[in-house]
Amino acid sequence: MAKTVSEGIGKFYQHYPRVAVVVTAHAEGRNNAMAAAWHTFISISPPLYGVSIAPERFTYQLIVDSKEFGVNFLPFEAAELIASVGSSHGQEVDKFQRFNIARDKSVKTAVPILKAAYAAYECRLIDDRSYGDHRLLVGEIVAVHWLKDVFTPEEVLDLDKVSPALYMGHELYLTASKDSVRSLDREVYGKR
Amino acid sequence: MAKTVSEGIGKFYQHYPRVAVVVTAHAEGRNNAMAAAWHTFISISPPLYGVSIAPERFTYQLIVDSKEFGVNFLPFEAAELIASVGSSHGQEVDKFQRFNIARDKSVKTAVPILKAAYAAYECRLIDDRSYGDHRLLVGEIVAVHWLKDVFTPEEVLDLDKVSPALYMGHELYLTASKDSVRSLDREVYGKR
Repeated sequence: MAKTVSEGIGKFYQHYPRVAVVVTAHAEGRNNAMAAAWHTFISISPPLYGVSIAPERFTYQLIVDSKEFGVNFLPFEAAELIASVGSSHGQEVDKFQRFNIARDKSVKTAVPILKAAYAAYECRLIDDRSYGDHRLLVGEIVAVHWLKDVFTPEEVLDLDKVSPALYMGHELYLTASKDSVRSLDREVYGKR
Repeated sequence: MAKTVSEGIGKFYQHYPRVAVVVTAHAEGRNNAMAAAWHTFISISPPLYGVSIAPERFTYQLIVDSKEFGVNFLPFEAAELIASVGSSHGQEVDKFQRFNIARDKSVKTAVPILKAAYAAYECRLIDDRSYGDHRLLVGEIVAVHWLKDVFTPEEVLDLDKVSPALYMGHELYLTASKDSVRSLDREVYGKR
């Protein structure tokens, strides 16, 4: 099958599923939460995490004011929660109150940690940089909250215990296929 | 279930599945390909993509020399290919030759585009920044190669036609669960 080549980019950002996270922030007595699909680890030591956010978002303002943000990884059962915070405006409404979002206590920062999350990071902002129509926020992970019981002894997510929420674009949510997992030993495959 | 809180970060980078991509580069007659799990869209206009790479990688050197890189999205059937390029050293071996990797013609750059990819971007490097033990490379997407037939009219990946390759950490590969897809209209969920 031959590929099409486009210079016009189209909806290129829907080319594959991504983990849907909820980014949280707190400043001057106000909390907010937003859905984000553009995020990645950047460094192991120190542990750095990056999130791309449009600067007009209320969450962006809270993060810049407080120099802190939270990243919350949610199970597929919480997809409605992700859709809810992704489609309402924190400037106008307290999403935590409106959607009755339960929280755990944060330990190193004041960012909201979602009780529904199977893992969540508290991050201290170390960089905020303009790229095109977004800002890339880079934070150092200063605390990790996680449901130890849903991870294997190797600290891999145990898909028999939790189904992670993924986002396909176009308001479509899905999860990973636990029956498809294959272990490919790099020592074997790198030496074929 | 109560969460554990860690300040020691552990294998936090395995907390969820990520899309496994193959990053490609070409400089001075040499090609290379590496597996990467730390990558994200950053901006829509202009279209920017970011990849976090350790500076000791041969691919990093080729990208810095050529100011170009490719991002290749592969189906789950190509997981062995990802494991292979992820576990061999391009300084020592031509991975394209060793693993017999078929290519499409690139149009705007000289980066290798993998024939096995269901979508691939040609990127021009616009930034290269040090964060902890990695470098964050940001590129402008100047051409998109994609198998039009495996996308829906809304340009969402059609999971009946292609199963994207995801990576869990710890050498575990998997795909998305097409039977789990739910459409959550943000107009509805934001107004509950």
